[in-house]
Amino acid sequence: MVIVMKPGAPEAAVKEVSRHLEGLGYILHTSRGVGRTLIGAVGLPEIDKAAVADSLRGHDWVEDVVLISKPYKFVSREYQARDTVVDVDGLPIGGPGVVVMAGPCTVESEEQVEAVAALVARAGATVLRGGAYKPSTSPYSFHGMGEPALRILRGAADRHGLKVVTEVMDVRRVEEVARFADILQIGTRNMQNYDLLQEVGQSGKPVLLKRGMSAKYEEWLLAAEYIATKGNPRILLCERGIRTFETATRNTLDLNAVPTVKGLSHLPMVVDPSHGTGRRELVAPMALAAVAAGADALIVEVHPDPDHAVKDGQQSQTPAQFSEMMVKVARVCEAIGRSLLRPASA
Amino acid sequence: MVIVMKPGAPEAAVKEVSRHLEGLGYILHTSRGVGRTLIGAVGLPEIDKAAVADSLRGHDWVEDVVLISKPYKFVSREYQARDTVVDVDGLPIGGPGVVVMAGPCTVESEEQVEAVAALVARAGATVLRGGAYKPSTSPYSFHGMGEPALRILRGAADRHGLKVVTEVMDVRRVEEVARFADILQIGTRNMQNYDLLQEVGQSGKPVLLKRGMSAKYEEWLLAAEYIATKGNPRILLCERGIRTFETATRNTLDLNAVPTVKGLSHLPMVVDPSHGTGRRELVAPMALAAVAAGADALIVEVHPDPDHAVKDGQQSQTPAQFSEMMVKVARVCEAIGRSLLRPASA
Amino acid sequence: MVIVMKPGAPEAAVKEVSRHLEGLGYILHTSRGVGRTLIGAVGLPEIDKAAVADSLRGHDWVEDVVLISKPYKFVSREYQARDTVVDVDGLPIGGPGVVVMAGPCTVESEEQVEAVAALVARAGATVLRGGAYKPSTSPYSFHGMGEPALRILRGAADRHGLKVVTEVMDVRRVEEVARFADILQIGTRNMQNYDLLQEVGQSGKPVLLKRGMSAKYEEWLLAAEYIATKGNPRILLCERGIRTFETATRNTLDLNAVPTVKGLSHLPMVVDPSHGTGRRELVAPMALAAVAAGADALIVEVHPDPDHAVKDGQQSQTPAQFSEMMVKVARVCEAIGRSLLRPASA
Amino acid sequence: MVIVMKPGAPEAAVKEVSRHLEGLGYILHTSRGVGRTLIGAVGLPEIDKAAVADSLRGHDWVEDVVLISKPYKFVSREYQARDTVVDVDGLPIGGPGVVVMAGPCTVESEEQVEAVAALVARAGATVLRGGAYKPSTSPYSFHGMGEPALRILRGAADRHGLKVVTEVMDVRRVEEVARFADILQIGTRNMQNYDLLQEVGQSGKPVLLKRGMSAKYEEWLLAAEYIATKGNPRILLCERGIRTFETATRNTLDLNAVPTVKGLSHLPMVVDPSHGTGRRELVAPMALAAVAAGADALIVEVHPDPDHAVKDGQQSQTPAQFSEMMVKVARVCEAIGRSLLRPASA
Repeated sequence: MVIVMKPGAPEAAVKEVSRHLEGLGYILHTSRGVGRTLIGAVGLPEIDKAAVADSLRGHDWVEDVVLISKPYKFVSREYQARDTVVDVDGLPIGGPGVVVMAGPCTVESEEQVEAVAALVARAGATVLRGGAYKPSTSPYSFHGMGEPALRILRGAADRHGLKVVTEVMDVRRVEEVARFADILQIGTRNMQNYDLLQEVGQSGKPVLLKRGMSAKYEEWLLAAEYIATKGNPRILLCERGIRTFETATRNTLDLNAVPTVKGLSHLPMVVDPSHGTGRRELVAPMALAAVAAGADALIVEVHPDPDHAVKDGQQSQTPAQFSEMMVKVARVCEAIGRSLLRPASA
Repeated sequence: MVIVMKPGAPEAAVKEVSRHLEGLGYILHTSRGVGRTLIGAVGLPEIDKAAVADSLRGHDWVEDVVLISKPYKFVSREYQARDTVVDVDGLPIGGPGVVVMAGPCTVESEEQVEAVAALVARAGATVLRGGAYKPSTSPYSFHGMGEPALRILRGAADRHGLKVVTEVMDVRRVEEVARFADILQIGTRNMQNYDLLQEVGQSGKPVLLKRGMSAKYEEWLLAAEYIATKGNPRILLCERGIRTFETATRNTLDLNAVPTVKGLSHLPMVVDPSHGTGRRELVAPMALAAVAAGADALIVEVHPDPDHAVKDGQQSQTPAQFSEMMVKVARVCEAIGRSLLRPASA
Repeated sequence: MVIVMKPGAPEAAVKEVSRHLEGLGYILHTSRGVGRTLIGAVGLPEIDKAAVADSLRGHDWVEDVVLISKPYKFVSREYQARDTVVDVDGLPIGGPGVVVMAGPCTVESEEQVEAVAALVARAGATVLRGGAYKPSTSPYSFHGMGEPALRILRGAADRHGLKVVTEVMDVRRVEEVARFADILQIGTRNMQNYDLLQEVGQSGKPVLLKRGMSAKYEEWLLAAEYIATKGNPRILLCERGIRTFETATRNTLDLNAVPTVKGLSHLPMVVDPSHGTGRRELVAPMALAAVAAGADALIVEVHPDPDHAVKDGQQSQTPAQFSEMMVKVARVCEAIGRSLLRPASA
Repeated sequence: MVIVMKPGAPEAAVKEVSRHLEGLGYILHTSRGVGRTLIGAVGLPEIDKAAVADSLRGHDWVEDVVLISKPYKFVSREYQARDTVVDVDGLPIGGPGVVVMAGPCTVESEEQVEAVAALVARAGATVLRGGAYKPSTSPYSFHGMGEPALRILRGAADRHGLKVVTEVMDVRRVEEVARFADILQIGTRNMQNYDLLQEVGQSGKPVLLKRGMSAKYEEWLLAAEYIATKGNPRILLCERGIRTFETATRNTLDLNAVPTVKGLSHLPMVVDPSHGTGRRELVAPMALAAVAAGADALIVEVHPDPDHAVKDGQQSQTPAQFSEMMVKVARVCEAIGRSLLRPASA
């Protein structure tokens, strides 16, 4: 259950409620948001939860008690029926407008990022993506330019009216990345790096949480719950392909995730058809499919010259492919009663 | 490689070419279509195939030799660059029009099928689906009404201007099912039942070949090749969900299959969002996504009263859900430059 | 539940009990064994099964009623607590002795089979394996010599005091294969070919049922139930590797299956480390592991000259590897309190 | 390739070689071990590596150059043909003696750990396992007692002549955990947490690296390479079950990994049948199978009263089960020509 305390509830009241629940064997996570404290509580199966909730509702400082059957609480649709719209510094993600995030896999140079930022903004993207710190299966691969890349992204984004999303891998760098980025990305390999989840939860920044490459929906939502229990409800879930036995594609983009997880959770859903397929020519059809399935945003890789990219060139679209795709994305948005959210300047 | 013999090539010429290739260690499958014989030939890696092809091109009765790098030959995009359009007794599948096949999981009664046929035709479906012989994981489940169900399907379809697709499981029943159905369905459990594939290959009827629930694309196309080598090129490939570790859905509908397999093969692609998700409320979003990804046809389960269906009620749409979905399907078709192919009478 | 009728129960009594259960909504499978009729019955969750069982126990011709919670009945450990020992014409499989089945993937010639039969018998195998009808992913692969191969296997086995196990794929050939073989093998691709399962169920011959390459344990046991409901309890379950994302091995041999399925079912468990790994050098360590995990039998591929085998040479052991492995298998058998069951003549 | 510098090679020589290779486009990882510097180098496919190696062999301070075809270098069998034996403060892992690590999933109290340590030492274990910091899918689960648990483990281990293995999850706690533990465990969720891998690489302590729950062998070995490139070759690989579609067990213990990975790498292989199966009654048969397959060590969960364990009681053996299993483990070790390595005091 989630106990919603009244605005301005004093610390003593929160403690009193907490002690009462702990006495009954509940495990708690208290989330202190702006002006309101929420207590997530998980109890043993044998407890009569309806009775506990009823008794709590009588408490002076308790506004409401929401019973939730799922193991995740704050991120569940039972806790909040309406869709969450994450406001990224003025850009709403999860509302009627569909958002496109685009950019290179890896920041290679200022020129490269400037060129990509200009073209993706022109084509209708509103968020610039790009790797400054890159996880890599091999220690011998390129691991990103680090802090200079963050500056390059920020600069190019600002020049073109874009927001910035970029990955953070190390708990010791959350603060640094948060200084430059508008959205902190948690990569697929770190979906269950719980210290990192809690750290970005405390940062208060919007977080794009990629699904682990073999994670079940419930595990993904529990990872989001780690962020939410730190008081940060600004979470975007990102489907990026799962590992299957198929070897013709890099991953198997699981679009079932879009309507299924939107049924379980109120959080916005982002889809990454670039990693999800690993092949440039599959990005556009799968992007259109994602929008048709109900995705709130897309995140795609674009490179001015993908055949010479430092990393993942195979899955990066050319500028022409991206522009052509955006025209079709806008049409599919309209067919399903939504619209492509373009940059303010466009 | 595939050797295309000239129209009217005498048997002796076919034998001469065959013996020549067998002498070089090739394994052959000869496909005798209408007025033209094709020889599919697979040779060892060390053979200089270009040289063999060149020498064959000099033969009086050889029209062309197509070199094909994939293990499947007749069904590959290398063998035929243009899309195959399968003509189902006047209904084209694989052309610009998107086809919808709909009906109950299992034939339960004449009334049930009549009701469903009427409503799906009205909503824009052109093919009636329904199980007469049903494979079932348990011997204690219902296995279908058999031949009476075939008669019911045929009757209802004829009254509403629909074609019939239904599954055949047993090699000894191919002839019987072919008497009533327009399209023979091979189910997921039989994708590698090679005797059955060859039997439907010989029937000459259009075949809807469901992907095995853990089959790779290449294995699926090789299963199609079994049908094609029997001289039957009228094959529809049907993605119906793969088995993954996710338990929130019955299967994981793999829409990557649509653009990926269309790149590998010229055959039309059908998508089954009912089995692919196993949950009624997910059928519509995944159907729209399938169309956006490039599917040529959908096959969906509709039941007048799904909560009381004999089988798979959970994944069957209500009449209202189906009608509402069809309106949206038509819109997404248009957004991507195609159209929903409605019944002639509608 | 399973209703055990008294020996000599008249047909009228069986019908009376059956009608009673069908009236309550049960789905039945009646299995007529030697001198005793069994009725497997699956009812809806809402029925009070204990009450139904009690009332049936009062019937004159009912000997016992066994309540079974699993979806499979006759093959479950609840139905029969003691281990089944399948008697293959004098050779017991499933008792304290561990049985080894060995031979070539595919019958290539009389000389090849004679050489292999001699060596595997000498090394301690008691069953000769070999393919006469071979399923193959590609229509261009070798599909076996057919009936002549059956004669070759039978002859060599008889000369060396071995039993014969070989695969049957086509319902129309069960009778033919059963004339030559002691054990009918159902391959991984046909685990859910229900017509074939029922046909071998009716044959009365021992059946080696390979696990489907992505089958869950429950599905595998339900496939065995199809055979058992036809009155044939002589079933051997064979683990042969599942499909995973790993590409370094052909399949992933799942040895968890051995103790897990032996907990669920009373049937003997066979392990195939040749297909399970696909690599010759992995066969011996995995064979030893299978025995240590509790397998009742092994089935392995041996070829006099594996590098020149027609099929699957990579996973076939050389004669020397096989003989060396058998010495170790015998030692591991003893370490766990069992013994290697050698040919009578040895 | 790996360039082995001569003992005492000056920094300038290392730099000279490095600059030469970087000039050719190689990516390098320099590993400074005790008295010897190694340079791992990965170059583009088009480079003539044999020629580069030959020219380097002429350098005064280069002792040897080893060409390695795999993407991992220091951990590959090509780099080092003989098995690595990791010396854990006098306890050799990877030699002829088989090592058993045992203890509770989670440290709950001093009494619990003392009781378990006493019994596992008596039964023949040489390493005490136990969780102080516990990763957990849910934020509402118990996450371990932290530092006090480390003290408890160390104390009990010292009293019973055992070594300590325990997990570290957070880069900021590596130093703390290393003060108490003899072996640092990297959990399955952190197999690709590259900052953490590098941190434990720098610690110099033996590392037990669990396989990611959906990792391929190559990815696992590349994760080990991250540790090795930091100069720490004391790595134990631990198979702990992979995720499959099977739901009857928690995971599918992949014993193929044992002989397959030992073919690819010289590192010792540990097997965890407790997490690998998730069910107490499956631990013993799978432990025996692991040893028969060639495992160098086992790691198992034992709890004085598993039905009341704070975590993972279902997969923890009772003291009696553990003692009985150890007798059988010793017998299987002998059957394959190895022996169980018992505590010095025993």
